[in-house]
Amino acid sequence: MRKFVGETAKTLIANNTIASVVKLNPHHRPSSPNYCSNRSHLPPSLYSPISSYSIMASTPPVTVESLNPKVLKCEYAVRGEIVSVAEKLQEDLQANPGSHPFEEILYCNIGNPQHLGQKPITFFREVLALCDHPALLDKRETMGLFSVDSIKRASLILDQIPGRATGAYSHSQGIKGLRDTIAAGIEARDGFPADPNDLFLTDGASPGVHMMMQLLIRSENDGILCPIPQYPLYSASIALHGGTLVRYYLDEATGWGLEISELKKQLDAAKQKGITVRALVAINPGNPTGQVLAEDNQRQIVDFCKKEGLVLLADEVYQENIYAPDKKFHSFKKICRSMGYGDKDIPLVSFQSVSKGYHGECGKRGGYMEVTGFSPEVRQQFYKVASVNLCSNISGQILASLVMSPPKVGDESYDGYMGERDGILKSLARRAKTLEDAFNSLEGVSCNRAEGAMYLFPNIRLPNKAIKAAEGAKKAADAYYAIRLLNATGVVVVPGSGFGQVPGSWHFRCTILPQEDKIPAIVSKLTDFHKKFMDEFRD
Amino acid sequence: MRKFVGETAKTLIANNTIASVVKLNPHHRPSSPNYCSNRSHLPPSLYSPISSYSIMASTPPVTVESLNPKVLKCEYAVRGEIVSVAEKLQEDLQANPGSHPFEEILYCNIGNPQHLGQKPITFFREVLALCDHPALLDKRETMGLFSVDSIKRASLILDQIPGRATGAYSHSQGIKGLRDTIAAGIEARDGFPADPNDLFLTDGASPGVHMMMQLLIRSENDGILCPIPQYPLYSASIALHGGTLVRYYLDEATGWGLEISELKKQLDAAKQKGITVRALVAINPGNPTGQVLAEDNQRQIVDFCKKEGLVLLADEVYQENIYAPDKKFHSFKKICRSMGYGDKDIPLVSFQSVSKGYHGECGKRGGYMEVTGFSPEVRQQFYKVASVNLCSNISGQILASLVMSPPKVGDESYDGYMGERDGILKSLARRAKTLEDAFNSLEGVSCNRAEGAMYLFPNIRLPNKAIKAAEGAKKAADAYYAIRLLNATGVVVVPGSGFGQVPGSWHFRCTILPQEDKIPAIVSKLTDFHKKFMDEFRD
Repeated sequence: MRKFVGETAKTLIANNTIASVVKLNPHHRPSSPNYCSNRSHLPPSLYSPISSYSIMASTPPVTVESLNPKVLKCEYAVRGEIVSVAEKLQEDLQANPGSHPFEEILYCNIGNPQHLGQKPITFFREVLALCDHPALLDKRETMGLFSVDSIKRASLILDQIPGRATGAYSHSQGIKGLRDTIAAGIEARDGFPADPNDLFLTDGASPGVHMMMQLLIRSENDGILCPIPQYPLYSASIALHGGTLVRYYLDEATGWGLEISELKKQLDAAKQKGITVRALVAINPGNPTGQVLAEDNQRQIVDFCKKEGLVLLADEVYQENIYAPDKKFHSFKKICRSMGYGDKDIPLVSFQSVSKGYHGECGKRGGYMEVTGFSPEVRQQFYKVASVNLCSNISGQILASLVMSPPKVGDESYDGYMGERDGILKSLARRAKTLEDAFNSLEGVSCNRAEGAMYLFPNIRLPNKAIKAAEGAKKAADAYYAIRLLNATGVVVVPGSGFGQVPGSWHFRCTILPQEDKIPAIVSKLTDFHKKFMDEFRD
Repeated sequence: MRKFVGETAKTLIANNTIASVVKLNPHHRPSSPNYCSNRSHLPPSLYSPISSYSIMASTPPVTVESLNPKVLKCEYAVRGEIVSVAEKLQEDLQANPGSHPFEEILYCNIGNPQHLGQKPITFFREVLALCDHPALLDKRETMGLFSVDSIKRASLILDQIPGRATGAYSHSQGIKGLRDTIAAGIEARDGFPADPNDLFLTDGASPGVHMMMQLLIRSENDGILCPIPQYPLYSASIALHGGTLVRYYLDEATGWGLEISELKKQLDAAKQKGITVRALVAINPGNPTGQVLAEDNQRQIVDFCKKEGLVLLADEVYQENIYAPDKKFHSFKKICRSMGYGDKDIPLVSFQSVSKGYHGECGKRGGYMEVTGFSPEVRQQFYKVASVNLCSNISGQILASLVMSPPKVGDESYDGYMGERDGILKSLARRAKTLEDAFNSLEGVSCNRAEGAMYLFPNIRLPNKAIKAAEGAKKAADAYYAIRLLNATGVVVVPGSGFGQVPGSWHFRCTILPQEDKIPAIVSKLTDFHKKFMDEFRD
């Protein structure tokens, strides 16, 4: 330990050159307003009263290098560098309007519909408000403010909650009555039974995904098969839990087709490297790729998991977001049951969220996972892990039940609800088509249609000169393109490299979520930018 | 691979003797309602059509033994065996009233006030309801239903949320305007500045604790100093993240005193074993022990962390729950700043939750951690991890801001709010005293006072015969006592072995949360049971 005194020490502190400064004698410092001098009981060997700073010229307790390397390895592009730049630009625009060649930041980077002006479904919010403040149910004025069926539903939900206590921790899997409602909704959707005891309500889908990774991954020798491109929650969660991401590539040429031969090839290659592949992630509808799996393809996937002894992790959070008239969502559970596989035959986890669909209630952090095909002993471990965090938030739990059981024909809210729902879904379909066409009209760009989900993932064939320029800027070529786009237009997209892509190909993910009146401006900004970018870099 | 056909296979399946059954030919099964026969494109080698079950006599994909051993090691007593038994008894009572020697289950096991009948704070719920359904703010009837200041506050909060979108993902650290409010609340509490950029809003305190463990723990060679007894979230989270729990014992004889000499002893012992101790957890007010740290003791703890290069993890979720008139809560940040330690001097994380205090809004899953004393590079890693889960739920975020900025003198709600708040806190203090006195009147039981928090942690000197009987039942002696208590009275407490205790001593944790009119019955049930138990086992 080196010692510094007086000005030297202060300079060192001010410069933060030596981050760990042990002030062994703070007692004499006049700047301590609440100072209590009674320290005589402290062992002098530990706290010797010397009148100088004593500085350990060692590293501070926590450096980046001393953090968990799994955390350091984890990446999450959706909120990466480009979002920081966008936030900075937004602050600039507020402080100095006119300081950039655009008037607003257009966030096309994240599936966050209400952030971009989408209105919440009235019925859902009525019920939530009544459950938050149940005293309203006893007041006459409430009848004038809320629909009859929202009042009825809120009362029903409150009756399902022990003590009508929306402010209490619930069962660790979620309130039983709400799980009953959700199970009934799943049955109505699939035509096969669902068991409320198989449901774990979660704060959005992400904590459920983390929980499965935590349970399945023992070391870097355990692998999880994930589609590439993928929603980076998966790669991030696998990294955080110290496992190995085993990539399988979706085939862009066939509309992001999922080929069993590719799964088999990658599984075998992983095995050869000594990796035990434990699970396969299927995202349907696809994120960022927007494809909707065909029923027959889903059967092949199920058979593959069955044969290879893999847990099937089915990300089905976009199940309501289908735009292609020739496509339909089928849950993997329905596929399994329709193939004759029962509860004991195949371990399957289906993730659902209130954040997506036509409602897009991202901020409510509601969701569930339906867990089937595990032994009671394994399920007990799931329950234990869920119980460590006590329960998911009750508003999110209520909303998850509403999403799986919206107003029915004959309910007062039904027409209004259907109007809001269809209005949003039809508008999303129009926006998807307009943006798809716009991308396909750009030089060197091709874009598969968004059959579902909330994204387009156009392929940009970037000129070599642009790739060189990106290298000079120490960026991936698509990140370079995306930053240039942002700085020129205010449009935020996520570079394809954040999702994974066939090496040498470049993409970006663009949501279809800006409100419809903004779409023409976005198209024209993208088109102008792309033209200038290509003029600058064309080989 | 062995093959079974016909009845043999069915029997095996029915008995679940062989859990992994590969049905290579589900196509011919009449029970597949949605069967699609077009499978000709499948490679025959993978899916050969044979008309028998083909069974792999191997382990299923997921056995308990194949789960992450860190998960298996993790324990969480608060929702452990005793809660399962209690739930079973509750079902029994509903199905067959009178089937047990009690009429209801009295949950004294968990800090869940509203589950036991505590009413939410009206102002908080008014604001939440208005934020959930902002359309109410435009309606005339709303004035008759809500207080003026709840309407004003909701409008203010909505203005702080970009696009007034309470259904959108927020900034990963939480909505900036709400963090401003919370920071102002911390400043008002401590008399020292707080920076909204230091706040990470979380779904309750637990995810914040997990996040810190995830960041700090690299392997089992990293240790975290935790008080014993401790809230088992800490031991569970350390186990889940693969670190080592380094115990320091609170001194029951001095009212659960925290001695620096004990910290030093345990730290040195851990170092000798090759453990790098990274952080010290201090729970103040204590859980399950209920003590409130003296200011001077807190200064010693700060100096110890500073000297030893430890991160100070300050669990301050019970900061509003102080019952001893001679005790006052001081945040560790205030202590640090009052000692002259600035932001760069000591890494400190303070956890706060909406679940505790006088409000007890457990189901809302709101909270925050205030993170100071880390370098910008380290903080960036915190932000990255927070961003992987996008954000905490917005209702919880709003509630966290309300808790740190409740109605002020002059607001319409002020008197009502203060009445609710003081009514709850004074009642909790009375309940704590009644239960403490009751425990101290029992043979062989001594109980420190609950200066704060929501728990009593009485010490029971169990007779040897009882300990023997527990061994026969393969239970810890206090778990045996707690199960017997539950089966005899319906009162649920948590055995001390779930929190840790000096080996050979026995305790249980009992909340002070049952409503006041229930307390006499609980006291009499506990007293009767204890007397009979001692009569049965007295040596």
